Amino acid sequence: MRLQDIPRHLARRCLGIPRFCRESLGVELRGTRLVVAYSAGLDSTALLHLLHLLRAPLNLTLIAAHAHHGLRPESDRELEHAREVCSRLSIAFQAAHLDIPSLQAASGRGLEECARQARYAFLESVRQEHQADWITTAHHGDDLAEDIVMRLLRGTGWPGLGGMPGVDPKRGLLRPLLDWEKNGLRSFLEETGTGWCEDQSNASPDRTRNRVRHDILPLLRRENPSFAKTSMQLWTLAQIDEEYWSQALPLLPAPMRNFLLASALLDVHQAKRLRLYKTILDSMGPGQVLASHLLRLDTAWMRKNCGRAIQFPGDKVASVQPEGIRFHFQKRSS
Amino acid sequence: MRLQDIPRHLARRCLGIPRFCRESLGVELRGTRLVVAYSAGLDSTALLHLLHLLRAPLNLTLIAAHAHHGLRPESDRELEHAREVCSRLSIAFQAAHLDIPSLQAASGRGLEECARQARYAFLESVRQEHQADWITTAHHGDDLAEDIVMRLLRGTGWPGLGGMPGVDPKRGLLRPLLDWEKNGLRSFLEETGTGWCEDQSNASPDRTRNRVRHDILPLLRRENPSFAKTSMQLWTLAQIDEEYWSQALPLLPAPMRNFLLASALLDVHQAKRLRLYKTILDSMGPGQVLASHLLRLDTAWMRKNCGRAIQFPGDKVASVQPEGIRFHFQKRSS
Repeated sequence: MRLQDIPRHLARRCLGIPRFCRESLGVELRGTRLVVAYSAGLDSTALLHLLHLLRAPLNLTLIAAHAHHGLRPESDRELEHAREVCSRLSIAFQAAHLDIPSLQAASGRGLEECARQARYAFLESVRQEHQADWITTAHHGDDLAEDIVMRLLRGTGWPGLGGMPGVDPKRGLLRPLLDWEKNGLRSFLEETGTGWCEDQSNASPDRTRNRVRHDILPLLRRENPSFAKTSMQLWTLAQIDEEYWSQALPLLPAPMRNFLLASALLDVHQAKRLRLYKTILDSMGPGQVLASHLLRLDTAWMRKNCGRAIQFPGDKVASVQPEGIRFHFQKRSS
Repeated sequence: MRLQDIPRHLARRCLGIPRFCRESLGVELRGTRLVVAYSAGLDSTALLHLLHLLRAPLNLTLIAAHAHHGLRPESDRELEHAREVCSRLSIAFQAAHLDIPSLQAASGRGLEECARQARYAFLESVRQEHQADWITTAHHGDDLAEDIVMRLLRGTGWPGLGGMPGVDPKRGLLRPLLDWEKNGLRSFLEETGTGWCEDQSNASPDRTRNRVRHDILPLLRRENPSFAKTSMQLWTLAQIDEEYWSQALPLLPAPMRNFLLASALLDVHQAKRLRLYKTILDSMGPGQVLASHLLRLDTAWMRKNCGRAIQFPGDKVASVQPEGIRFHFQKRSS
């Protein structure tokens, strides 16, 4: 299958992918080496074939990576299907058996969180082995809509509320299909006669996410059938503001990231102060900062509640002191 | 009923109202004349009694305004109840019969929109007659949650997505209960033994709003029982950003509001450009600007699509011209 062999509207849509990456994500695809997270389900099958179509014109190197979770009976069949497809397309293929239940038992974390971590660790290992530029995932506009509702429920501030980033250089992640809807991906596969493995359950182990997907999103789509498109627009606004704030905030030298001096907060608008805190907390490592935490810290700082310590997810702490705010990790009690 | 006669935690909460108005809305309540939109339902009954408790300590002048819609059989009973309550509390009372069906027939607009317009026109007439400072309405945190979901569905950008403003000087509107939850208002009434008229239907004539209220919000609250609180935090962030942007945007002299010169857009970040467009469009009058419109206009401008005209709600148009963007009204075809 080549670009010139498929219907013109699909070819045009496919050529929109490098444009989206360049214009909206600031990433040039041409000549890159890409790991494709390929489960053999609808979304990632579309991603694999779309990138395959772009392989020659953009001089891409593709490596498909398949995580075998072993949680569902059809996992073995999916692995075989994925291997065959890649062999037929002459795409390098790598698979890993991830024993999530054992990992979960060892870590004590939730099932979804464990599966996610193990999957990304595997993808990152493939990226390093093949010296690839990016791990590409098939997240699309409907995932974005789901993500926005999840973030709204969780209390994420702005611009985080606009959904997952399209590019995450720290994790080497690229999401080139965020401006596609799931229906568009399905049409692409159907019109090109490409098969995929139907995920029987389509259930996420995260029960909140499941109910958002199966109960809440259908109701939102009933009111606004273009809710995925509306979500993509909100996402676009969020990316614009994300960039604005990254330019508007002062560049803090590394030592200042542990201690935000009072002088650096003087005459700074609250909108900037909140984002300054968030930038520092994010730079400390994983753990999602919520709006309520940031507001609480800012209130404590403005009221000069010295000695007050605000806890953040990921064992991070911000302590209000007379000379400024100290950011540090909580001492774990042994 | 006086502040010193009610349970202390309620008195404290009541005294939080002037603080919320001062700190979050920038409005000093002391010594003001307030029109209270009083339907005799739960929310506005709580508002009336809370403001009544604050009347002596804050030297407030209160005027209750009751709109009799005549749409429901219990309307007459509610009018009488409202009149009696105000007479008992020695609060000036004014009522108006609003004949919504006739107004709707005359205007050709939707029922909800007509009722809303007629209600606010009545409240504004009472405000002017009594030379009052503000019209106060009983919108609370649960209304905010509903409003945020409505705006999310509609495709409102940021900070508009954060919900209705707490103060609208142009319309003389003040919403002093935005940081209360409906449950808190109910508890206040129950603990003080204050009765209200139960709205039998609790249905809005807007079917989308109804389904958001009765189908979608209960599901969101099931995932996050504090969803009203989470919404209030998002609202707080939005107010902070609203203020930030109002300071960050250049103050345009009136003639420049019809024509945004290319020079005023040069080297201006997209985040600012979008908000500049919105400020101008909002200043032209009613009509809600959505994110998609603003993005479309900006794309047309950056691509220098001269001659391109982008339509906005409220018959507003932005025309891209070589020297800048002209904002004007659409000529109505007769």
